[in-house]
Formats: sequence, structure tokens, C-alpha cells
Amino acid sequence: MKKKSVVIVGFGNIGHYAYESVTAEKDMELKGIVETAPNMPDNVDGIPIVSDVSSLEKPDVAILCVPSRLVKKIVPLYLEKGICTVDPYDIHGETMLELRKEFDDIGKKNNAASIIAAGWDPGSDSMIRGIMKLMVPRGVTHTNFGPGMSMGHSVVAKAVEGVEDAVSLTIPVGTGLHRRLVYVKLKPGADLEKVEAQIKQDNYFRNDETYVYAIDDIEDVKDMGHGVHIEHKGKAGITHNQIIDYVHHINNPAVTAQVLTSAARAVTKQKPGCYTLLEVPIADYLNMDLETLVRKMV
Amino acid sequence: MKKKSVVIVGFGNIGHYAYESVTAEKDMELKGIVETAPNMPDNVDGIPIVSDVSSLEKPDVAILCVPSRLVKKIVPLYLEKGICTVDPYDIHGETMLELRKEFDDIGKKNNAASIIAAGWDPGSDSMIRGIMKLMVPRGVTHTNFGPGMSMGHSVVAKAVEGVEDAVSLTIPVGTGLHRRLVYVKLKPGADLEKVEAQIKQDNYFRNDETYVYAIDDIEDVKDMGHGVHIEHKGKAGITHNQIIDYVHHINNPAVTAQVLTSAARAVTKQKPGCYTLLEVPIADYLNMDLETLVRKMV
Repeated sequence: MKKKSVVIVGFGNIGHYAYESVTAEKDMELKGIVETAPNMPDNVDGIPIVSDVSSLEKPDVAILCVPSRLVKKIVPLYLEKGICTVDPYDIHGETMLELRKEFDDIGKKNNAASIIAAGWDPGSDSMIRGIMKLMVPRGVTHTNFGPGMSMGHSVVAKAVEGVEDAVSLTIPVGTGLHRRLVYVKLKPGADLEKVEAQIKQDNYFRNDETYVYAIDDIEDVKDMGHGVHIEHKGKAGITHNQIIDYVHHINNPAVTAQVLTSAARAVTKQKPGCYTLLEVPIADYLNMDLETLVRKMV
Repeated sequence: MKKKSVVIVGFGNIGHYAYESVTAEKDMELKGIVETAPNMPDNVDGIPIVSDVSSLEKPDVAILCVPSRLVKKIVPLYLEKGICTVDPYDIHGETMLELRKEFDDIGKKNNAASIIAAGWDPGSDSMIRGIMKLMVPRGVTHTNFGPGMSMGHSVVAKAVEGVEDAVSLTIPVGTGLHRRLVYVKLKPGADLEKVEAQIKQDNYFRNDETYVYAIDDIEDVKDMGHGVHIEHKGKAGITHNQIIDYVHHINNPAVTAQVLTSAARAVTKQKPGCYTLLEVPIADYLNMDLETLVRKMV
């Protein structure tokens, strides 16, 4: 079977993990990395690093390892060239729907498919919640994140006056509620009590149980581990008290990159258009022939 | 939107729960129940009970609530009439693949789709394991069943000389291993030690930690609750120690019937042919319009 040709777009944190994922897959061939940052080497272990995908032979699929805010701009550049895309867009709500419509049109016009939001939440967690709901359609679902770093909350804490650096950890306390542990490195002369008060009154923190600790070096508490606990309880038919739990403890960028890589496999099997992970059969993500899959039912 | 018209085939334990599931779904209409057992009433709450589906207007989909061994015979009768089918076939391995091929041919010839093995294992558990493997492709997965009754093991225990009735409970002990608790009602004069020895040397039990208890009434320990714990640990890309756990505690026939019902929704959206749950997008199982689904990412 011909291997899928893949390029990685963006060679930051996720991009480096995607490099590891793609090169570990037996049915994929990494053809290049697109990165516009200055002073990049011209290759990594023989894989070319280029500033424009046009310098490479046209790949089957581009794995976008770029921030969510750049997805809207970058995906069309690839779809218009007839290259399938996957991206880690991670903002729930209306913009997700808009992107899906926009990329669907562009994909159909250019004979290419796109999978959006191919991380873990939204992403594989969405698939899990979908399965919970097909088994137990009436009930309550709670998604509890952590323990792990929250980028959004860390940015807010860093912006507080008197804070030199900060990281905010999300701790799951059940039923969708979270505790926030905020580690700050104070600027010389800053007052911890004032910093703490300001963090706690911010909209990002005011509804959560929040603790603020001053430490000397933020690196001491940084850890790429993250987790989730999805709880679902409700009725199958009219039978009550069906309980389903899903828990993972993962390396955040490694699993994000792996979901993107599995989605890159799936996207090449779809008709032109744009899809979320929920709209693609699970079988399409796996490197397993259909006969083995059906025999084993994984 | 037009409701899907549904018939239930087989009105035993699962069939009764399917009746409850289908009538609870807002996008489905239960048109009848097919049951050939003697002395059936002619309706249940106004839903006709018939011995042949031809007495009813042709439905969109038939939910087969019949034992696995009858699936091979009954599914074609419906597909040949152009009626989509879902069934709870639950035997892993080669026969699954054969059925899928056979029903795929019949479905394509008769413009009808079929989803096989639409219970929870094989079934929704297979979907969960598929998601674990797309997130963490290299590693070890263990499926631990229970606590719950095992029909197969109960049948073996019942067949032992000196046993009047029996039930075997499966207790999960992790890493895919199980403890067996066998409750027997002895025939008058039977020797518990002999019964116990015979049960423990049977192939169904000899590799598992097994305990045999004599009780007065098997009904005292019967309980339709069942569970599973699926453990997965391995590498995403080349990053080790990614840990995923899935646990459910459910009413066995209620959730089996609900998965069948959700699959009945999905099957009407597929092209003619036969599918396992892994080959159908999760979105197709849910009674949720695409816009809501994408906005919420469930």
C-alpha cells in the first residue's frame, strides 16, 4: 500500500511531537516541515524544513500545528492547493461551526478534505461524550479537566501587576468544577496579598476555588501532563442509574499531536469537505485493515 | 422531520427494553413487534404484535432482539425486503467477519443497510478501544468485565451433575483477568465438594480464580447490572506512559437495547451494505442536528 505523504506546518511544541508521531506511523511518510520562523536549519534528520509548502512535492495531507487563532487563515491556503488538512483548533462554540462551513465550501471546490478540532477537547473527548450519549441518551455529563496547566488562566495570572511569571494549574474536583492552583514569581517588592486578591477577583478565577502561591522559579512546577475525567450518569431507555466514567492522564502535546496524526490518516479517506472528529468513522483513524478490525472489534 | 419507522423483532428480555428505548426517542415511531412465540397478545399499549413483518407497513428499520445464533438466519429476511437491520450479535472473531460480508452483499443487492454487533461488547466498548488506539496507538489494552452475570459460564455450571440451577458472576481483577463466583442450587443429596471440583476443572473456569457457593435460591443473587473496566496504557508518538481508563456500571439489557436503538437511527443514514459500529460516524447515532453537535462538540 502506498504511504500517505504528510507535511507538518508549524514546528513549535506540538509540531515537534507531531514529527515524532508521524515518523512512528508505518503508513505515513513525512515529506517536510513548513516553518516561517527565522534561523531554522534546512532539515531535521534529512526531512526538509521550508518556509513555503510550494517548495515541496504536493503532499496528501498537511498537519497544522499552529495556534487556534491562525487556523482560519492557514487551512484555506492548503485546501486551495488540493491538500487535505487537520488542525488542533480548540475553541468551542459558534466559531467552530463557522470554520466548518467555510472549510467545507473551500474543500469541496478544491477536491480536498479537512478535519477541524482534532485535539483532545474538543476532539477525542467529544467522541467519548458522543458514545456516552448514544448508550445513555438522557442524563448529565460533566467534564473535569486536570491535573494540568491551563494556558488561558496562566496568561491572566501573568498579566497581574507585580507578577513576573505565573502558571495556573487546573485540579478537577468533580461535577465539572475545578480548583485553581496559581504559582507566581513576584517582581521585586511586589505584595503577595495584593497579587492574590487581584487574581481571585478576575473573571477567570472568581467562580472557582483558587489558591495563590509565591515561588522562586515557575519552571519548578511546569509539567506537560494533563488529565480529564468525564462523568456521565442517566437513563438508557427508561432505566435509571447508568454510570459511565472516562479518565485519562496524558502528556498534553504528545497526545494532541497523536490525535492530529491519526486524523491525518482519516482525512485522506473522506470525500471533499470539512468534518469534526464526530463525523468520521473510528475505523478511518486506525492503521488496521478492515478484516482485522472486524475480527478483533479492537 | 419525518420520524423513522421501527419494528422490534423478538419480544424477550432485550426486546422489552428496546420497546422502552424506541418509544422514548422523539425521532422514532414504533410500528410493531414481531414475535412468533405462542399465546402472545395482539398488541402492547396499542403497538401491534404480529408473527410476520409482512402484516405491517414496511418499516425503515428492524431492531433484532434475538439470540446471536439466530442473527445469520433472520437478518437476511429483512434486508431482502429492503428493511435496514441492527442486531446484537456478540461473538468475536471469524464469524463476525463472515456475517459482515454476507449481509453486505445482501444489503447492497436490496438497497438496505445493516449494522451488526450493536451491543456493548463487541459494540460500544469496541468504539472506546478504537478511540484509545487512535490517541495512543502503541501499548496494551485490557478489557475487564463485571461485576455481572456471565450467561456462558452459568450454562456450564448448570450442566454439572448434581446442580439444579446456577449462576456465575464475573468479577474484574484487572489486566484482563477475572474471578468467578459460582452460586449453585444443589439437587437433593448432591455433594458440594464434587460439584465444586467439576466446575473448577471445566475449560470455562480452570484458568480463573473460581469460588463455588451453595445457596437455596438462585434468584437471590441474580442482578442485571453489569460493568466493564477498559485499561489502556502506552505511547503517543514516542512519549511513554499515556494512561486511559473507561469504566461503566450499567443495566445490561437496558444499555444493550439502547445501543441497538441508537444504531437503528444511524443505520438509516448509511449507504446500502453492512457495517460494524466502528465504521459509522458517532454523529449518526445521536438525535442531534449537526449544527448543535458542532457547536457543543457534545
